[in-house]
Amino acid sequence: MGLIALLTDFGWNDGYVAMMKGVIHGIAPGGQWVDLGHDLPPQNLWAANFLLAQAVPYFPPDTIFLAVVDPGVGTTRRAIALHTSQGYFVGPDNGIFTRIYQETQVFGVVTLDRPRWWRSPTPTHTFHGRDIFAPVAAHLQRGVAFSALGSPVSVSELVTLPQPLPQVQGSTVRGVVQYIDHFGNVITNLSPVDLGPHWQVLQVEKTLRSPLNPSQTYGDRDWGELVALVGSHGWLEIAVNGGRGCDRLGCTDGSVVVVRVHRSPRPESEES
Amino acid sequence: MGLIALLTDFGWNDGYVAMMKGVIHGIAPGGQWVDLGHDLPPQNLWAANFLLAQAVPYFPPDTIFLAVVDPGVGTTRRAIALHTSQGYFVGPDNGIFTRIYQETQVFGVVTLDRPRWWRSPTPTHTFHGRDIFAPVAAHLQRGVAFSALGSPVSVSELVTLPQPLPQVQGSTVRGVVQYIDHFGNVITNLSPVDLGPHWQVLQVEKTLRSPLNPSQTYGDRDWGELVALVGSHGWLEIAVNGGRGCDRLGCTDGSVVVVRVHRSPRPESEES
Amino acid sequence: MGLIALLTDFGWNDGYVAMMKGVIHGIAPGGQWVDLGHDLPPQNLWAANFLLAQAVPYFPPDTIFLAVVDPGVGTTRRAIALHTSQGYFVGPDNGIFTRIYQETQVFGVVTLDRPRWWRSPTPTHTFHGRDIFAPVAAHLQRGVAFSALGSPVSVSELVTLPQPLPQVQGSTVRGVVQYIDHFGNVITNLSPVDLGPHWQVLQVEKTLRSPLNPSQTYGDRDWGELVALVGSHGWLEIAVNGGRGCDRLGCTDGSVVVVRVHRSPRPESEES
Repeated sequence: MGLIALLTDFGWNDGYVAMMKGVIHGIAPGGQWVDLGHDLPPQNLWAANFLLAQAVPYFPPDTIFLAVVDPGVGTTRRAIALHTSQGYFVGPDNGIFTRIYQETQVFGVVTLDRPRWWRSPTPTHTFHGRDIFAPVAAHLQRGVAFSALGSPVSVSELVTLPQPLPQVQGSTVRGVVQYIDHFGNVITNLSPVDLGPHWQVLQVEKTLRSPLNPSQTYGDRDWGELVALVGSHGWLEIAVNGGRGCDRLGCTDGSVVVVRVHRSPRPESEES
Repeated sequence: MGLIALLTDFGWNDGYVAMMKGVIHGIAPGGQWVDLGHDLPPQNLWAANFLLAQAVPYFPPDTIFLAVVDPGVGTTRRAIALHTSQGYFVGPDNGIFTRIYQETQVFGVVTLDRPRWWRSPTPTHTFHGRDIFAPVAAHLQRGVAFSALGSPVSVSELVTLPQPLPQVQGSTVRGVVQYIDHFGNVITNLSPVDLGPHWQVLQVEKTLRSPLNPSQTYGDRDWGELVALVGSHGWLEIAVNGGRGCDRLGCTDGSVVVVRVHRSPRPESEES
Repeated sequence: MGLIALLTDFGWNDGYVAMMKGVIHGIAPGGQWVDLGHDLPPQNLWAANFLLAQAVPYFPPDTIFLAVVDPGVGTTRRAIALHTSQGYFVGPDNGIFTRIYQETQVFGVVTLDRPRWWRSPTPTHTFHGRDIFAPVAAHLQRGVAFSALGSPVSVSELVTLPQPLPQVQGSTVRGVVQYIDHFGNVITNLSPVDLGPHWQVLQVEKTLRSPLNPSQTYGDRDWGELVALVGSHGWLEIAVNGGRGCDRLGCTDGSVVVVRVHRSPRPESEES
């Protein structure tokens, strides 16, 4: 029985997440679950997409990811489940699984059109997390075959969330802030592949006074100093040692980050 | 072994909830628990009562609900356990179980007067959650008979929390806001039975500019528009699609909500 | 298999804690874990030290405490594990375990220098919680011998966090505020041993208008009144019944608290 990992934009204390776990426990008693996170920025599909893609590689491939960020609940948006090389995914077809199906091997997708796996044949119009997604995840956990959950769908039919891509122009790369974590660390969409071996952060929201050279870790700079590094998420991250990078830089999700890259074999002479 | 579901007004990070789980784990190792919610509005008995009543139906009936919202800890308020058709309940006798014993079948109530089930015969005066309630819940979980937990008490002796009831006057029903969730959705105490088949929200805190007709789901209205619907909690709920209903309406717990109801078989001609 | 108890300064929703649990679950499937707390004041070693020392006695002695408050991650600070009479401890050697090794019997300490127990031989420089500490805790949980985790270290080599001690001067004792909990209750570093049988709080941050005599519980004073008592943490605590003591007193971590103590056998005549 795989672990069920829950990600929602419900509050930790509103009872909604607990109701989902109650439903799961009723169907698959003894199964384990874990909170991937709740209280996401309400209905922010990008945050859900980012957090799922970041966390998934650290879980065993029999994990069942139950993601409920669902502004379209009760409308005609599809309810789906995916089976991939990195686990099972259950939730609304609104783009929150975009990176998953783009970055893993997809073995199958189904639309959740079989009421026998729901909590009741007449789900509410406002809480499919409890009425459809949680019961389906629980049935998966207790051993129901993935293909029995619903009718097959092609990956190409799924809703895709637009992903801003890095823009390369000569020796500069422009990325965006894709997430700001709890510490105020600013996580960009620039990876080591985009940056190459030698790089320097030139600008973030026009508030950076001087370029930032790469660090290995937060403690490489003095307390209160800005630090640029490839963070534990695997992306270029700008932080303040002991402080909040986002506040210092005045940046938010989507802010532009400009980096100078040096792809030549002898970049040292260019750095100042 | 039933699941233990914890509801408290302790912070998630103060260590109090963890201490309770440590005590439970020491008595009933291998048992499962779930967080129904913590960090409730401090000492708000109504919020605890509401959240319990809402969540309980989604759990199996062998669940042990451990609820610690306990402003009277250390005074003469009674410590109790209830056995009902919807589960076991352990906590202070201060009204937080009012809806439970009013809305479920009660098989038995005991006062927790047997120190052998406590953490020690001399509990602190300030933290019965850890010293009495958690150990009692854990002993229940590991199989101690309910009737062994303490001396029987009659339901009629329990503390009752006053519940505001809907007021019907001609074709209007007046209810109150009983809970505001994490999304800012405004949950009233009006149920489909109070509303009947045809209804229209007339007023909330004098801030509603025009009546609201019923919707099925949040997405039925444009982004940013007010929506009135019977929500997943089963109550009339007023929300803003993609926003915070409570902020838009300027309402809080206890705010009055006025609804026009049409009980005639042909109400359509009256609606405008 | 002991329970793994996690304490970090990561946010509940950033995915970092979930990644740690994913890694643990991959190594020790079926093991149990509990959240001691997250979202601690960022990089506040004193808060971590306090919360660990407070919570540990309530857990069985086979518990594995995994504590990641780690401002020095990626620098030369040591990674350690301790085996004590109150459980196992895994985390950075930066002082967060000071009270543990001062107040319990230490059976052994190792430095985590064996990559075979890490997630990979090349951990990131920014997230040893996921890459070193979580895997080590999981291997302990699944039965690896403590002594196999790394090379032995002497307790005297460990980093010690300075602990402010109570200052006795005649009939007064001066302590400090060591923690402010979620309710705003002000927890000092004065224990019943420091206070003796008869005491009176004289001053806190010069905002106390009249001395506070001892109470047994919050409800001993009227709603809204200040209360001084030995709280459930076992320390002198100053609270407001139904309110926030820290706001009333204008105090923070480190604020000085002055108490008059009476060690004579007949102190009653001195009290006013």
